[in-house]
Amino acid sequence: MTENAKHWTHLDSEGQAKMVDVSDKAPTWREARARGQVRMAKETLERILEGTVAKGNVFNTARLAGIMAAKKTWDLIPLCHPLPLASVEVFLQPEPELPGVRIEARTKTFDRTGVEMEAMVAVTHAALTIYDMCKALDRSMVLENIRLTHKSGGRSGTFEAEEAPNLS
Amino acid sequence: MTENAKHWTHLDSEGQAKMVDVSDKAPTWREARARGQVRMAKETLERILEGTVAKGNVFNTARLAGIMAAKKTWDLIPLCHPLPLASVEVFLQPEPELPGVRIEARTKTFDRTGVEMEAMVAVTHAALTIYDMCKALDRSMVLENIRLTHKSGGRSGTFEAEEAPNLS
Amino acid sequence: MTENAKHWTHLDSEGQAKMVDVSDKAPTWREARARGQVRMAKETLERILEGTVAKGNVFNTARLAGIMAAKKTWDLIPLCHPLPLASVEVFLQPEPELPGVRIEARTKTFDRTGVEMEAMVAVTHAALTIYDMCKALDRSMVLENIRLTHKSGGRSGTFEAEEAPNLS
Amino acid sequence: MTENAKHWTHLDSEGQAKMVDVSDKAPTWREARARGQVRMAKETLERILEGTVAKGNVFNTARLAGIMAAKKTWDLIPLCHPLPLASVEVFLQPEPELPGVRIEARTKTFDRTGVEMEAMVAVTHAALTIYDMCKALDRSMVLENIRLTHKSGGRSGTFEAEEAPNLS
Amino acid sequence: MTENAKHWTHLDSEGQAKMVDVSDKAPTWREARARGQVRMAKETLERILEGTVAKGNVFNTARLAGIMAAKKTWDLIPLCHPLPLASVEVFLQPEPELPGVRIEARTKTFDRTGVEMEAMVAVTHAALTIYDMCKALDRSMVLENIRLTHKSGGRSGTFEAEEAPNLS
Amino acid sequence: MTENAKHWTHLDSEGQAKMVDVSDKAPTWREARARGQVRMAKETLERILEGTVAKGNVFNTARLAGIMAAKKTWDLIPLCHPLPLASVEVFLQPEPELPGVRIEARTKTFDRTGVEMEAMVAVTHAALTIYDMCKALDRSMVLENIRLTHKSGGRSGTFEAEEAPNLS
Repeated sequence: MTENAKHWTHLDSEGQAKMVDVSDKAPTWREARARGQVRMAKETLERILEGTVAKGNVFNTARLAGIMAAKKTWDLIPLCHPLPLASVEVFLQPEPELPGVRIEARTKTFDRTGVEMEAMVAVTHAALTIYDMCKALDRSMVLENIRLTHKSGGRSGTFEAEEAPNLS
Repeated sequence: MTENAKHWTHLDSEGQAKMVDVSDKAPTWREARARGQVRMAKETLERILEGTVAKGNVFNTARLAGIMAAKKTWDLIPLCHPLPLASVEVFLQPEPELPGVRIEARTKTFDRTGVEMEAMVAVTHAALTIYDMCKALDRSMVLENIRLTHKSGGRSGTFEAEEAPNLS
Repeated sequence: MTENAKHWTHLDSEGQAKMVDVSDKAPTWREARARGQVRMAKETLERILEGTVAKGNVFNTARLAGIMAAKKTWDLIPLCHPLPLASVEVFLQPEPELPGVRIEARTKTFDRTGVEMEAMVAVTHAALTIYDMCKALDRSMVLENIRLTHKSGGRSGTFEAEEAPNLS
Repeated sequence: MTENAKHWTHLDSEGQAKMVDVSDKAPTWREARARGQVRMAKETLERILEGTVAKGNVFNTARLAGIMAAKKTWDLIPLCHPLPLASVEVFLQPEPELPGVRIEARTKTFDRTGVEMEAMVAVTHAALTIYDMCKALDRSMVLENIRLTHKSGGRSGTFEAEEAPNLS
Repeated sequence: MTENAKHWTHLDSEGQAKMVDVSDKAPTWREARARGQVRMAKETLERILEGTVAKGNVFNTARLAGIMAAKKTWDLIPLCHPLPLASVEVFLQPEPELPGVRIEARTKTFDRTGVEMEAMVAVTHAALTIYDMCKALDRSMVLENIRLTHKSGGRSGTFEAEEAPNLS
Repeated sequence: MTENAKHWTHLDSEGQAKMVDVSDKAPTWREARARGQVRMAKETLERILEGTVAKGNVFNTARLAGIMAAKKTWDLIPLCHPLPLASVEVFLQPEPELPGVRIEARTKTFDRTGVEMEAMVAVTHAALTIYDMCKALDRSMVLENIRLTHKSGGRSGTFEAEEAPNLS
């Protein structure tokens, strides 16, 4: 065998995808919050709130979809680490002025790396599920403004999005 | 056993979640396209284009994440049917004026139900993967404007978003 | 290479696990129904019906769990084939005399093999989810009487359990 | 943004599904045992014991199905946490008087939450696999008496089902 | 939106990963066979044949692992299509002269694309499982000579490896 | 219930598959390395290096496939434990004299059991993905010499394959 460390290292430095090695980080409590929204026709929101969408209760299904997808983040996002999730919460709020539905997810873990992606995945899958359940009524819905609003724990410290996150 | 059809039907009409029964639909060719974008700092886009993001080549990884997630749509979206995907394509385009990355996904199947959710899932997971790979540089990225732009095949006919979809 | 067909065949005839080869069967419409129940304390059923179980709405969550698990039957049961499920329905009914909850699942596919296991898996996972959500209140719940009640389509013809299945 | 904590909390108190936040619990060793049985025709049990079931060795396959499903509990039961399973054991015993097969599963973890569901899932999937492998012979088999028989570790203390669990 | 087809096409022609679009292919019966082997110490093979490996029956477990992994090929190999597998068979044969175990897998589908990867995945996972079960005895085992031996059906015609595949 | 510990133990001692109980082991840092290669036609390797394989960039896709599969090892190999992977790296090196591609994977965890199988799975799936992407050009590629080259941490101590592993 003629290869040596230099060759492999060289290849790897060319921008090849890799999971970050977190073995030198200490496990600490880490939390994250993400938000997003689904904008839709006024009539679509009314149908959700009346509970007359043919596929069933939209909020219950979207909340569960968000929680369940968060647990699969390590499988969905190629370079994420598997994490022992201590908590995932998904909140949904109808917003008549949008009109649409606002979504917030909050995640916690005790590990060597953060749970931001788990929160982002939870919001996204709750939003996709709202889209799926209502698409027969309204194909023009838009998933938007999906972003991290808070992150704490870990070496990079706390991140707080500029919008005041007024949810306790 | 004392239950009867009326009881079960009653429960079911209260808005309980259900998969649509597609057994009375004929299999036909069905296509869908969805789009979205990740808005980011100008410097973040430059790092992606230079290929100096620490986690590796962002476009390659995001494209694969979108394709692979599309194949799991049935598992991620609670009321989606499993589908024999004939094609999934994910396109990524840097957009300096955004600044950010535009994403388009195109899906095809021959089945009794549509592939809209597969296209939406592909766009979303490509976007989430971009977020994951660049978040150490820029936690304020936003996933936005994720929507269906085209759908054809099936009983509900063709849907074309109002924006002119100028991609062949 | 010295092995030959006889050796392999011999090994295989020793009772080794195998998926049935369905390539000589024609695809036809196939349906199945399964039933089961979760027996519990009277107070547990009351809490479910009042909607005061701490983990949330039990019926919604159990129904979704049943639907979603049915789609994974091919992955859970080692020798099952992957199937294009056209429909999965899960019905839940509180039964004060049990006391407990009765569960029925109905499945349909157009394929070369039957959907009995998908219906059995749906009932079982709805039942397991009821157990999970209520176990802090009542660890003595029992999952029972989980059985196939109907099967039609395919070479082996129609099966109807002896109990009169009075649900249309 | 006009939403506030009250709105979200209100929604959440309406009985919406949620994972329990276990971040205030200490990791401890936790164990669980569950049992159940598959009742079947006398001839079916004989075929299993003779090793002449067409799909292969029933006990080996069912045992592996139980172990493998236990590892997926977090994915199958919507509100379960992912757990680092330290041990899963599945025991099967032919019972000519039933006639049928008794199943016991034993699980262990070191975590902030219990392993009861993993034991219940192992029993259930071993039972479903027995059903699948023998259903061409006997569609009237019944999965029954699936229950938790023991649980220890964690704040809620030890649970022992009333039946004397005489297995060490 | 200013992007146009040329931009996207350009990006895509740079060698970016994509699933082949199979929508212009007709579904036909397709079969594949793959083979491989695990070379090991003579004593390790003896332990397998005596049935005294601590983790249990090696052949049964490896065969099931191969079958179950073949069903997940679409999820494991990024650019593979999901396929309705009609048959997966895994054969294992002890080979004292190697010394080791030979593995053959045979797969069938009726679809627009081939089942070669499913056969390769089945062989590989049976081999990995043999490695896992025996590694406490022998860490120097080698997985080798894993290759496609036969493929038929589809536009590219029949492929037969040069070695005479003398198994019917 | 008449069964007792002896019966169950007896059954279990007959060589039935089981996960090793690791609850009496202490969590420690554990590392593993595995290697393998894909031998192919000289022209196939040239096409990979030119970047003209129709399915896209082979090295990027294979590397990601290896990383992603390693995270699923617990699901693929029946008796493996779920592990919190701290690091997975996959290195690929073209080897004109082979001709073909050499693959190395390196894994780390802090747990009660080793990460050898994760390294073996990463190498194998990178190799399978190379096969998949190039098979339209060359169906005679062979996956070979897949073996563990290094293991450290845990009660069984350090293992170093006889070949000098000259990669740091």
